[in-house]
Parts: sequence; C-alpha cells; structure tokens
Amino acid sequence: MNPSTDDLTAHNATPSLAMDIPALTEFLVREFPQVAADFHIDTLEPEHIVVRLLVGERHLRPGGTVSGPNMFALADVAIYLAILSRLGPVALAVTTSAHVDFMRKPAAHADLIATARLLKLGRNLAVGDVLMHSEGSSEPVARASMTYAIPPKRD
Amino acid sequence: MNPSTDDLTAHNATPSLAMDIPALTEFLVREFPQVAADFHIDTLEPEHIVVRLLVGERHLRPGGTVSGPNMFALADVAIYLAILSRLGPVALAVTTSAHVDFMRKPAAHADLIATARLLKLGRNLAVGDVLMHSEGSSEPVARASMTYAIPPKRD
Amino acid sequence: MNPSTDDLTAHNATPSLAMDIPALTEFLVREFPQVAADFHIDTLEPEHIVVRLLVGERHLRPGGTVSGPNMFALADVAIYLAILSRLGPVALAVTTSAHVDFMRKPAAHADLIATARLLKLGRNLAVGDVLMHSEGSSEPVARASMTYAIPPKRD
Amino acid sequence: MNPSTDDLTAHNATPSLAMDIPALTEFLVREFPQVAADFHIDTLEPEHIVVRLLVGERHLRPGGTVSGPNMFALADVAIYLAILSRLGPVALAVTTSAHVDFMRKPAAHADLIATARLLKLGRNLAVGDVLMHSEGSSEPVARASMTYAIPPKRD
Repeated sequence: MNPSTDDLTAHNATPSLAMDIPALTEFLVREFPQVAADFHIDTLEPEHIVVRLLVGERHLRPGGTVSGPNMFALADVAIYLAILSRLGPVALAVTTSAHVDFMRKPAAHADLIATARLLKLGRNLAVGDVLMHSEGSSEPVARASMTYAIPPKRD
Repeated sequence: MNPSTDDLTAHNATPSLAMDIPALTEFLVREFPQVAADFHIDTLEPEHIVVRLLVGERHLRPGGTVSGPNMFALADVAIYLAILSRLGPVALAVTTSAHVDFMRKPAAHADLIATARLLKLGRNLAVGDVLMHSEGSSEPVARASMTYAIPPKRD
Repeated sequence: MNPSTDDLTAHNATPSLAMDIPALTEFLVREFPQVAADFHIDTLEPEHIVVRLLVGERHLRPGGTVSGPNMFALADVAIYLAILSRLGPVALAVTTSAHVDFMRKPAAHADLIATARLLKLGRNLAVGDVLMHSEGSSEPVARASMTYAIPPKRD
Repeated sequence: MNPSTDDLTAHNATPSLAMDIPALTEFLVREFPQVAADFHIDTLEPEHIVVRLLVGERHLRPGGTVSGPNMFALADVAIYLAILSRLGPVALAVTTSAHVDFMRKPAAHADLIATARLLKLGRNLAVGDVLMHSEGSSEPVARASMTYAIPPKRD
C-alpha cells in the first residue's frame, strides 16, 4: 500500500552506457532474429533512446496505418534496448506490464519513431515511457508506459 | 474529474447478439485478411467471448513462448469481436488504450486462449477485460484492459 | 522483452489463508489508523476478498458521487489486504502501479463494494484485479489492475 | 481495432488559453470546495501546467510519505485543470481512466509537484501525462497517464 522504496542511487548522477548502438543492434539480431530487421536505433544517449519501426506492408492494417500490435512491439523494443544500454547484455529483463494510449492514426506508409526514456532503473524493476510519432509529423500517435522485472545478478 | 456518466441503459437487461460466430469470422477474414488466420472463436455468448490464438512459429520468441505483441493482438481482437457481436458490422470501433499485465511465461507451443467480456458498452466508449491462459493450463498468463471509441451512428 | 517467468508453484493448489478477517482488520487499524475506519471486509476467501468503502460525506464530490481518489484507495486497500491474507503480517508490499477504468457514476450515498482477487502472487511481484459496484446495483462502476512489489524475506 | 482517428486540427498550431491561473483557482474553489485548498497552480502555459500538492498531515501515511490516493488526486486535478485551461469553464470533463506508476518514495514532509501536459485534446477524448517529484528532488516519484471524456457541446 505504501509507495515503492526500491531506490536507485546510481541514477542520481549522469548514467553511463554499458552498450552502444552497434552492440545493441548486434544483440537484437542475435537474440531476436524474427524481429530485428523491423527496427533501427536512430539515437542513443544515457537519458533516452530513439528507435524507428521500419514500416513495411506487413506492419499495416487496411488504410495503410501501422497496426496496434506493431506499435506495442516498438514501445517494448525501445525500452528493452534502453535497459540493455545501461545494464549490458547479461540482463534479461522481462516485460511485466504495458500501458498504451492510442491517440491518432499513424501517417500512411511512414516510419514510426519512438522516443523512450527510463524513469526508473531499480534493482528489481525498471519503468520507462515512450512517445511515438510518424516520420514527418510532430503530433504524438501513441504513448506507452512499460515496466520490466530485472532478474537478480548471477554471481 | 468526476467519474464517467455515459451510462448505457440497454446494458441492464441481458444483451442480445447482433452477429454470431460465422458472421464474426467472415467479417474478420474480409476486413483483416492479414491476421484473420491467426484467430479462432471458440465460444460466443452475450456476456463473454473466448478467442484462441492458433500459435505457430511466427508467434514465438526464443524459448518457444508467445511474444508480447501477439498477446496484445489476441486481447485486442477478442474485445473488438465482442463489441462487433453486440453492435453489428457497421461499427468501426477504434482502440484508444490497452493495459496488459504479463504474469507468467506462456506454455511452449500451446495455443493461447483469451476469455473476454465487455464491462461497459456506452454510446461513445467501450471497456473490456481479457484473461489469457495457455491451452492445458489454468494459470493466467496475462490480463488486459482495453478501451475503444465507438464512432457516432451515421443516419 | 520476454514475458515474465517469475512463477509461483504454491499458486497451483488451493492456497491457504495466513490471516483471517479479524487479524486483517486489526492490522489495518494499527498500521493505517488514518484510513482504517473507511473500510470494512465483507468476505475473505483464499481466491478473493470483498471490501466495502463505508461512504460518508468526506468521500463525495458535488452531486453525491464517490470521488476518484477514494475509488483508487478502495482498490489499493482491497488488493493489499488480499496479499496480507496470503503472506501474513510480516509482508510490507508496496504498490508499484495502478490502472483504473472509471465506467459509470457511482450511486449517490451508497457504499462502494470491491471484489478483488490475486491473479499472481510471485516471489517479487503480485498482480490483482478489482471490480467495484455501488451497493444495490450490479453494474460495475470501476475496475482496477494493481501491481505490488513483495519485499524479500528477512531471515 | 484500428488506431484512433479522432483528430484535432486545432492542436497543430500553438494553442491559446481559455482560462488563466486566477480563473482556474476560482473555478476549483467554487466547484470542488472539499479539495481546492490542497492544490496550488505554480505555472500555466499552453503546453503544460505545474500543480503542487500542499502536503499536510492529512496526506501522509506512516513514515511521513504522501499516500497513493493523494498522488492519484494530484495527477487527476493537474490534467483536469489543463483541459479547463484550454476549453474554458463550460467543459465538464470526466475521468475515464488513470494509469499510475509509483517509482520512488516521496520525500517526507515535502510538497509534491506535478508537471502535466495534454498529448491529445480531441472532440470526445483528452489524454494527458503527468510526472511528479518531491520539492527539492529531481527524481520522479510517480508518473500518470489520464484519459477524460469531453462532453458534447450544448448549443
């Protein structure tokens, strides 16, 4: 009933990156070969990551818009990569919850771009949020809150 | 700030069905040909619907478990079909939000079965919840809350 | 990115209760004296708990309806008590997330009754859902999904 | 099943304010006398609003931290005021859903400050997000996504 106390002192200073874009991309290709080709990391900084869904016919619904499950997948990958970038490849975070608000119809046949940031990276739990827009438009298409369980360290 | 007052008097009595399983299946095949083959309606009653994700290799992540986006898609389709079953094929409900809690690893290579019910079917807004389990197990794998905007009637 | 694997074998059998209604009520009075008088436990079973918000003037908004924060508090208390009833009074679960759909206006000047159940009680994380209705009406007023972090056992 | 198409063209340009801080404060005092004294509007701009919970003993749980329901109330008021500031006092938006992630323990006996922004202000639906921190700390304590139904205009 009380608010969470799983605090993260390392979060107070500017965090450092444990993996860079080539390392994250290689990890994605190796561990998630089914979906790796769908995504491209545009930008990585300690405080946020920008990930792009390379929209193709297979992501679309009638009318040429990106489907809901593909927006969900983009949000999930973006926060997952943000966690990896901080903890390194040993971490196998698991998604425990996702909340997505769908606000506007994505532009037809345009990539979908997610800007994601970690709001908390605790010992057991990570929380991130994601804002998505279609390339060429500044209006947000969807926003997502994602939470992940961080497995205990294996010594 | 006040709780919603968009009440639905028609909801008080036992609701009637505007579409049956064959009609819903035909609608899905016609309007969503990319995904229709993934789903099967097991049961349809006024108060709930049971929809199955026919799990194949393309739905899996490493380790043989169903991916998060496919669980999202199952929840979305199940509530969408529940709304259609009540309002008929003219309604084009749009998903406005989704909240999914992922609770357990789905069983490897087993279908995923969603039991969905509408908690509200208002003039403008529908709300449903979904519980998912792997075939052959009773433990819930995930639960979802979905909300949809109901477009105004065209006279 | 993978669904959660924090499984709970003890959940498969019918669970047993570590605390009964008098013990839960006493705990609430002792630990949360500010709010304990607002709530009453109607029913407690291993699989679910029914908790009542004893609605008074201080819970109302203009028009005589229960305010959103009070509905949130009821959902939070109901799942918190459900966790305590299973783990006993040593556990100090902390709320990590709450999702509430407000569906109908609560009845004026009627108690609000929450039926809550735990969908997962893992080593680190508990997930529950709650359905709320006004006394004397069967229509759901609100539903909530709550997640809690379970602190590690102190040996 | 398709993403929302309830677009808002007026949102593309820089929006103008229909109410200023004194007008919003007066509205709150008049319409929500039970809670108005708990809140103070620090900043109002077309794109965001900063609202403070004036933390007193009645908002605290054991240990001196702000309770979850009070954090919920702060998020709800902040987005409600943001909607009013754009649509004016005739609008009576109703909260349809709230999603809150509780990330850290609020500082003891410090005000809680919410920065809120509207991501969508459609004809029927508004979506906002809120980030909360304790005064004197930059770490986010909680974040919230709120959705509201906008009632149709009465001509």
